[in-house]
Amino acid sequence: MTKTVNRQVWLKSRPNGIPQARDFDIREAGIPPIAEGEFLIHNEFLSADPAMRGWIADKSNYWPRIEVGDTMRAFSVGEVIESKNPAYGVGDKVMGIFGWQDYAAVKQPQVMRKVLEKDLPVSLSLGVLGLNGLTAYFGVNEVLRPKAGETVVVSTAAGGVGSAAGQIAKILGCRAVGVTGGAEKVRQCREEFGYDAVIDYKATKDLDAAFAEASPNGIDAYFDNTSGAIHDAVLRRINLRARIAICGTASYASWDPWNEGPRPERHLLVKRATMQGFLTTDFAARYEEAAAALAGWIRAGKLKYREDMHQGIESAPGSIEKLYSGENQGKLVIRL
Amino acid sequence: MTKTVNRQVWLKSRPNGIPQARDFDIREAGIPPIAEGEFLIHNEFLSADPAMRGWIADKSNYWPRIEVGDTMRAFSVGEVIESKNPAYGVGDKVMGIFGWQDYAAVKQPQVMRKVLEKDLPVSLSLGVLGLNGLTAYFGVNEVLRPKAGETVVVSTAAGGVGSAAGQIAKILGCRAVGVTGGAEKVRQCREEFGYDAVIDYKATKDLDAAFAEASPNGIDAYFDNTSGAIHDAVLRRINLRARIAICGTASYASWDPWNEGPRPERHLLVKRATMQGFLTTDFAARYEEAAAALAGWIRAGKLKYREDMHQGIESAPGSIEKLYSGENQGKLVIRL
Repeated sequence: MTKTVNRQVWLKSRPNGIPQARDFDIREAGIPPIAEGEFLIHNEFLSADPAMRGWIADKSNYWPRIEVGDTMRAFSVGEVIESKNPAYGVGDKVMGIFGWQDYAAVKQPQVMRKVLEKDLPVSLSLGVLGLNGLTAYFGVNEVLRPKAGETVVVSTAAGGVGSAAGQIAKILGCRAVGVTGGAEKVRQCREEFGYDAVIDYKATKDLDAAFAEASPNGIDAYFDNTSGAIHDAVLRRINLRARIAICGTASYASWDPWNEGPRPERHLLVKRATMQGFLTTDFAARYEEAAAALAGWIRAGKLKYREDMHQGIESAPGSIEKLYSGENQGKLVIRL
Repeated sequence: MTKTVNRQVWLKSRPNGIPQARDFDIREAGIPPIAEGEFLIHNEFLSADPAMRGWIADKSNYWPRIEVGDTMRAFSVGEVIESKNPAYGVGDKVMGIFGWQDYAAVKQPQVMRKVLEKDLPVSLSLGVLGLNGLTAYFGVNEVLRPKAGETVVVSTAAGGVGSAAGQIAKILGCRAVGVTGGAEKVRQCREEFGYDAVIDYKATKDLDAAFAEASPNGIDAYFDNTSGAIHDAVLRRINLRARIAICGTASYASWDPWNEGPRPERHLLVKRATMQGFLTTDFAARYEEAAAALAGWIRAGKLKYREDMHQGIESAPGSIEKLYSGENQGKLVIRL
């Protein structure tokens, strides 16, 4: 530990909508001291996640809003370099909410999990072995609960969460239909992630016709990362007792004011269908079960992933807008 | 059996929206012969239900659409007066889908249930002991599953389904909040059905303020018979893990074209809430369990009901528009 400077990305102005690079700035602080029960993390990889938009902008969100002047809340993974907590030894790799910064004095509740898979890249703890993979795992297995042979639609199908959700649906014996944008992502969905059918929502003029072709037996389950027009087209095609897991709303830049659209009630009633919102953190007690399953599938070559690796903390401020541009391919990770 | 004329109410024209008296006509047919396995029902009471709108008008509904020229599909209760089915003896009272007519040749699948509660009025089989009560029972117990102490909101709170749902929520130890229109229905909700708080949606200028006052601890479960503005105001006030049962959409005269409104996804996500459509007929295997419970609560004075009794088959054609006018009080039944 020779460095003495802790670079921090902090919120400079509050956007209504998608946070831009200009809404952040980088400052230099000291290495924080640790109190009894805490430990010092040296971050190795920082995460950029779509949920960050909500953490910053939304009035009604699941976590306290980030205030102007705060170091940006973020998932990251790093090494314990000093510890006053017997459960975390120097050299342990730990993933949690440690912020967009080099160093963090960490309390137990900030930890999401210790990295146990020493044979796999540590950065995966921010993606397929972290929030993305866990979100896909619980969304599919606990909310959608598809049976073999059912048709499962996934939006943002090539993304970190979507690609894992589609592959888990395939592992469960389902027909997986992906919705993504652009020829290269369509190719990834087909060739790397193994979707049975892929809809390019940017190139498709008639979403209803595209879904009719991609889901000849209708839709039994929908992993919804987008809301919007894709969601509405799925609703028109659901089968009896369909399940819709609300995971994200990427098609909307802002929820203030409240977006309008076709009402779902009649479809839910006629089809006896269910729409359910979920957060991965609700399943915290079962992270290790899920991570073990995900790691097993990765080792067996059944669960593929992509990382969109960026270099240096300077890439953090502009990373959230990249997520919403639809340009990034795979899980966006920043290597420090 | 001295009569030889079977009066039938038939569909003369297809409305888009709420069926009016002019969309029906009455014709005289003969008493139908019964085939082996069938039995002849002499209807005593006919039902008018909000769902009839969907049976007639909607392209995508849970039952085949009623065609122009058909005798109107309807629930009714009557007596077996001739039988070629050993399970149904002359004198049995039976409830089922026998149509808006005096006589029906009935096959087993048309039967909803035999009337077993000989100490209670037979017309209750069309209301609190029939579809209404069963719908309330399964909607509350199977979809909403409220715990004692939770706040349950019911729309069309004074109606046949709503009043039973509110009282079942009270029996389960919940705080029941009713939404209804007009001073007389508000009075019924408070004095007869025992709601803890009642919102008069016609008199209230600010639904959000009314819900804030009526549900100081937020809303845990919502029995939605209306959709529309009431639904949206409830969504803004739900608690974590709230459940919304979609039972009816009375606030919309038509679903063609698809109605627009605020999108629910963000609320469902942030609150990890569930919206689920259900039909009572999905629970057919459990009707007797539910009817026995409902009859027990009626006898114990815990479950009150109102009947809006009309006289003669001539009242049938105009009965559906009455349901949607909000004028009827209690379950609309037509005595033949």
